[in-house]
This record gives sequence, C-alpha cells and structure tokens, in this order.
Amino acid sequence: MLKECWKKVQEVSPLVHNITNYVTVNDVANVLLAAGGSPIMSDEPEDVEDITSICGGLNINIGTLNQRTIEAMFIAGKKANELQHPVLLDPVGTGASRLRTETAAKLTQEIHFTVIRGNISEIKTIALGSGNTRGVDADVTDAVTEDTISSAVDFAKKLAGRLDTIIAITGAIDIVADENKAYIIRNGRPEMGRITGTGCQLSGLLTAYLVANPDALLSAAATAVTLMGVAGEIGYENMQPGDGNSTYRNRIIDAIYNMDGDTLEKRAKIEVK
Amino acid sequence: MLKECWKKVQEVSPLVHNITNYVTVNDVANVLLAAGGSPIMSDEPEDVEDITSICGGLNINIGTLNQRTIEAMFIAGKKANELQHPVLLDPVGTGASRLRTETAAKLTQEIHFTVIRGNISEIKTIALGSGNTRGVDADVTDAVTEDTISSAVDFAKKLAGRLDTIIAITGAIDIVADENKAYIIRNGRPEMGRITGTGCQLSGLLTAYLVANPDALLSAAATAVTLMGVAGEIGYENMQPGDGNSTYRNRIIDAIYNMDGDTLEKRAKIEVK
Amino acid sequence: MLKECWKKVQEVSPLVHNITNYVTVNDVANVLLAAGGSPIMSDEPEDVEDITSICGGLNINIGTLNQRTIEAMFIAGKKANELQHPVLLDPVGTGASRLRTETAAKLTQEIHFTVIRGNISEIKTIALGSGNTRGVDADVTDAVTEDTISSAVDFAKKLAGRLDTIIAITGAIDIVADENKAYIIRNGRPEMGRITGTGCQLSGLLTAYLVANPDALLSAAATAVTLMGVAGEIGYENMQPGDGNSTYRNRIIDAIYNMDGDTLEKRAKIEVK
Repeated sequence: MLKECWKKVQEVSPLVHNITNYVTVNDVANVLLAAGGSPIMSDEPEDVEDITSICGGLNINIGTLNQRTIEAMFIAGKKANELQHPVLLDPVGTGASRLRTETAAKLTQEIHFTVIRGNISEIKTIALGSGNTRGVDADVTDAVTEDTISSAVDFAKKLAGRLDTIIAITGAIDIVADENKAYIIRNGRPEMGRITGTGCQLSGLLTAYLVANPDALLSAAATAVTLMGVAGEIGYENMQPGDGNSTYRNRIIDAIYNMDGDTLEKRAKIEVK
Repeated sequence: MLKECWKKVQEVSPLVHNITNYVTVNDVANVLLAAGGSPIMSDEPEDVEDITSICGGLNINIGTLNQRTIEAMFIAGKKANELQHPVLLDPVGTGASRLRTETAAKLTQEIHFTVIRGNISEIKTIALGSGNTRGVDADVTDAVTEDTISSAVDFAKKLAGRLDTIIAITGAIDIVADENKAYIIRNGRPEMGRITGTGCQLSGLLTAYLVANPDALLSAAATAVTLMGVAGEIGYENMQPGDGNSTYRNRIIDAIYNMDGDTLEKRAKIEVK
Repeated sequence: MLKECWKKVQEVSPLVHNITNYVTVNDVANVLLAAGGSPIMSDEPEDVEDITSICGGLNINIGTLNQRTIEAMFIAGKKANELQHPVLLDPVGTGASRLRTETAAKLTQEIHFTVIRGNISEIKTIALGSGNTRGVDADVTDAVTEDTISSAVDFAKKLAGRLDTIIAITGAIDIVADENKAYIIRNGRPEMGRITGTGCQLSGLLTAYLVANPDALLSAAATAVTLMGVAGEIGYENMQPGDGNSTYRNRIIDAIYNMDGDTLEKRAKIEVK
C-alpha cells in the first residue's frame, strides 16, 4: 500500500492549492516539492477560485487566519467541492480562540473535507463543534497513548462517520481513520515537536497524496502520515554534533526528498484496527 | 543570574503570542522552540484578545505592519497590559517611514511595554516620539562603540525612566537598561548582521525570558540578549567551509537549542554599569 | 562585465524595497544580504511611498497578491518611477488566474519596469496582455531549449522593445534581452526547480544589481542571472549524502555569500546574441 501510494505521487506530481499560515508556508512549499508535488499559494478571495481550479487539491490551514483569508477559505473550499477535488482542513488552534473555533466549525458545516488533520485537542474541538452544536463523541482522552489508543480510535471512527471524512489525529502515536477502518502509526520522533510546522507540512503532503490516489484515500492519508514519521526518523539519524531544531527541519524535508518506496515500506510501523 | 534565568525558561516553557512580520516569523517560531518556549502567531483583531489571554507574554514587531495588524497590536497590547503579561515592542524601521514612526510612538503612549528593543537608530526615534512630542534625550551617538558607550548608557537609562520600561539597544555592543542599572554585553559576531531577523528572533526570545522570570525582568532581558550573542558565537564556530549566512542562521538557532546554563554563564561577556 | 557588476554591488550595498510573496520572503531577504545588499519589506499602501523613497530600487512580486498589496504595488511603483529608481516585476502565476493576469497587465501599463523577469509562460502572458489588449508576439515556444532558443530570443527582444524594458526569461536556459541585444546563459542546475522561490530570490538579487549598476542595466541583469545559476552549481557541488532540496536552498544562498568576482567570471556560460 505505502509503496503504491508513494509511487503514484511521483507519477502524478500533484499540484496543491494551499491557503495556509505565513509562519510555516515556506516549509510547506518545500515539503511538497520534496515529495514530488507542486505548491501554489493564494488567499485572496478574488483569486482563489481560479487557482483552485487549476490544482488537483486544496489544503486549508487556519494557523494565521484573518477576515480576508477566512472568506477565501470558504470560496476556495466550495469551488474545490464543486470540482470534486480532495480538500483537507488543518484546524490549527481551534479551541484556543472563539474565532478559530467558530471558523473551523463553520468550515466543516459548509465544506466537505476529505481529511481533517490535527492534534487530539483540535480534533476534539472539531467534534464538539461550536456554540450549541455540541457533539457528544469528544468525551475522550487528552493524549493518545498506548493506554488510551483504543478509545481514541473509536472516537476517530465515530467522528469520521458523522462528518463523512477521514480523521487524522497526529501526535506521539498517529491515528488515521474513516468510519470503518483505522490505521495506527508509530513512526516519528518526539523532537519533531520542537520544530515549528511539522503538522502544517504534513497537511500539505497529505493533500498531495489524496490528489494522486483518488481511489485509495484512506491508504493515501495513512501513507502520508507514515512518510512524515519515517522522514522524522531518518532526519534525526542524519543529525550531526551541534545540530538542533533548525537543521533538523531541513533534514526532515531532505529525507522526504530522498525517500524511496522500499525504504518507506520497510520502516513503516503501521497497524490496522 | 544567567544560569538561573535560563533554567526558569526550561521549567516554565513560556507560551508567547507574537504579532510579528512575515519575513522572519518562521525563525522567530523556531528560536522560541529552541529556547524551550512555545510560539503562537495571531494578528487578526478579532482573534488576538483570546490568543493573548492564553499566553504568558506578547511580542509586538512592526516590521511588516499594515492597517489590520496595527489594530491587532493595540487590542492585544491593551489586553496583555490588563492581564499584567509582559509586553515587548520591536519598533522595526521606526524613523524610516511616517507610518512606522507614528505607530511606534502611539504604541508607547497607549501600551505599557516591559521592554523596547531595537537598534540605536530605532531607539532614538522612540525617544524623539512623533510629531510635536519631541523628547530631548535622543541627542546621542548614532553607533554604540567603546567611545560612545558611556553616553549611550545614560541615554538608555533616562529613556527607560521616562517610559517606565527596559530599553534594549542591540548592535556591536548591546545595552540593556532600566532607570537605575544597565548591563553592557559584548557577545555576538558582526556576521549576524548578514542574516535577516536576528533582531526579531531576539525579541521573541526576550519575551519568553520575561514570562519565565517575572521577578527579575532586567536580569531576564540581559540574559536573553547574552544568549543570542553567545549562540551567534557558537554558531559561527560551527561553520564549515562553504557555509554562508543561510546556514549560519540555522546554526545560531541550533546553538540555542543545544545551550546549557553553564556554557551561557561561562561565555557571557557582561558588565554592570 | 560580470566581475565589474558584482564588484559594484559590494561597494554600493544597495537597499532594495520588496513587495513580495510571503512564501519565499525570508529567502529573498537572506539572498539580498548574501549578495551584499540590504532588504526592506513593506506592502501597506500608507507605508510604501516612504519606504521606497529611502531605497535604491523596487522589486514587485505578485506571488501572493491581495487587494491591499496590489494597491501598494501601484503606489510604490509610481513613486519609484518618479524617483527614477529601477523597478522589477516578477509576474508570478500570471496566466494562472484572471486577477494575476490583469494585475500584471495593468502594472506594465501604468508603471515603467526596468526588468520583467519570469518563466517563459509568464512572459508570454505579459506579451499577450489582458482582455482585448492582445499582443501578437507571444506566438513562441512553451519551453526554451537549444531548438527553440533562436525564436525565443527574437520574442524577448521584440517584447523588450515594445515595453521599453529588459526581459529576463529564466528556465533551463536563461535569456536576458533588451531591444537590441540578448544574453543567453547556460548556468544553473535542474534541481533548482525542486526548491521553492529560486525565481523570487533571483528577482530580489537582480534588483540589487540594477541599483548598483545604473549605467549598465542589461549587463547588471545578465550578471545577476548568471550569479544565481553559478551559485546553484556551487551549492549543488557542496551537497552531502542525505541532503535534499531544503539544504540545497541554504547551500545556494551560502554560495552567493561566498562568491567572488573571479569565480563568477570563470564559471559563467554566457553568450551574446
């Protein structure tokens, strides 16, 4: 599965429209190029319909949202839905402010997302919705550990079913689930949390994998999450004395650039549940 | 002092709200993570009150200001003042345009800043104020050198007293002063001026040090400035043949990531005046 | 020629005002510093007249344009024209959306550009204009190769004449042309296309070269394009096992930082036509 999904991305070279935050946008662009895809960034309401139309998929990240870019998210998301392009939501910081929580909730109501990717706290906020549209399935752990993995998987599956989407919860252990099936992925390194934007990079990457694998969306999502984790491991193995988080960031993207399908397959720690 | 302030940051892991420019924002985020803190970026007026409320401190940098983000700076700054969070101003380019000069001046009038950090030219513009609110204490050197250090320290102390703040003037020699006491710091490398954003990075770092050391603000500020300088030296020592300013940027952040309190203490070239 | 233009930049240390996209802006700033220049970024309509007035030249890049920054582009461009500063246009994505195509077309109508730099597709869109102002000289190849170079050079010269500008078409083979003379440059590496923003970096660099060489604009433009290509080659030679596109990005900027005029001259593959 992993090797096939990886190979498809090399063949298709998917073009991804990103409406993303200005903190990590350069890394998102470089990781997409490293993975064999191509990035375009556009967040002006008047520009996004045209741009999303020439792309294969759309990555919406609310990390530094503002009124203008929120408007662009809705316009682009609806257009991408109309064109049946895969659309990913990265609800950065939902739960941390009213605007973020409400924007993420409204996006999930008005746009159909192929994948919603976040940490457990963000995904729980998505489950709760905003205002009086409280879901009930967010009664779950605050951290995905070996002890809580089972209930977290159930939560992800239920939420995926309710929102008709794929839920990707990333952290020390990653979960990628649709209503019926979940992948548990144990690749990656804790040091990745000391780099800004590994999550944002994954969201860009994941969108490219969806574009290139339209008939195997869950596998594609699980492959992208595994790829990021494996790259984090290889990047860490390549660290030299004196290297820290800034160089580590480069080494992870470099590892994606140098990845091959066999290495990815061999190093994957992936389990179906 | 340095070791204690450094240790506090590791223990507290301060969360810093940054309203900063889009040129160097990624490095600001990574340097905060390298130092043991955490960054959040938000510059939408509707979002900033909530975000600053969950943080420990606020870093305002006017490097790529616009009407929207200026509004956000005032809202966030007032909220942070209300919550008694430390607030830092980095008045990038004040003196270079009317909008920057007036914005920086108005910010210092309406918001209480714990620290104002800039180069000598920016700090002089702050001292002069804007329009008819000319200060008189900006009659000082244009470059802090061994010859002018004494008058520069007097200037910094007086301005700190007048604005009830800590003044950090950074350059070849750094001055960190409140009304009564000044630290003179001689760490760092001239090559740091060939990297974009070492000043912006320091402002983020400095805010984290303030958050973690509420009872020792001047020491915390002097420690952060020294840390940046020492990291600049270590990063430079780690340069390999063929390396230039882009790699040097990474090596400085890496040096902060790998810093320990003893090394910082031992390498500090810091003097009280 | 190359050595002289390079040397001028070191002597003058040109200050460049950039209205550029937020994807690659950090690299643009660092490449300008690497080359011996200095960057300022400002894209707020109320700020740009003052900022461009203290600079030597203006670099306009529409990569992540929005209504606010478009307004700023026109204000800054007109002011820079008035001050007789060199102005460069990088029409990123023109042809990919109506807004980009119309904005680039309107910019070329209302502002005099010293250089317009893009890939062949973008430059063809510039030649076509927008709406009913269709040019006829865009009937040219979609890729500059050894087979098509002759007609591409003719196209570039004609367009340069019509718009009274220098046209720089960059790709596998680069063309830098005014109405009468064209340089063909064969430096660079195909792997540069796997890094985001080498084109944006070149546009910043090129503007600095124009500022420092006002009496030799075509030579300056050709030198900057050659410099980027040679740096791409040296950066590639410095790649270590495990390095990928993220590190390559750093190594190219580093190579510009470490460049000297003799190396540039010796490695240049430049031909006049």
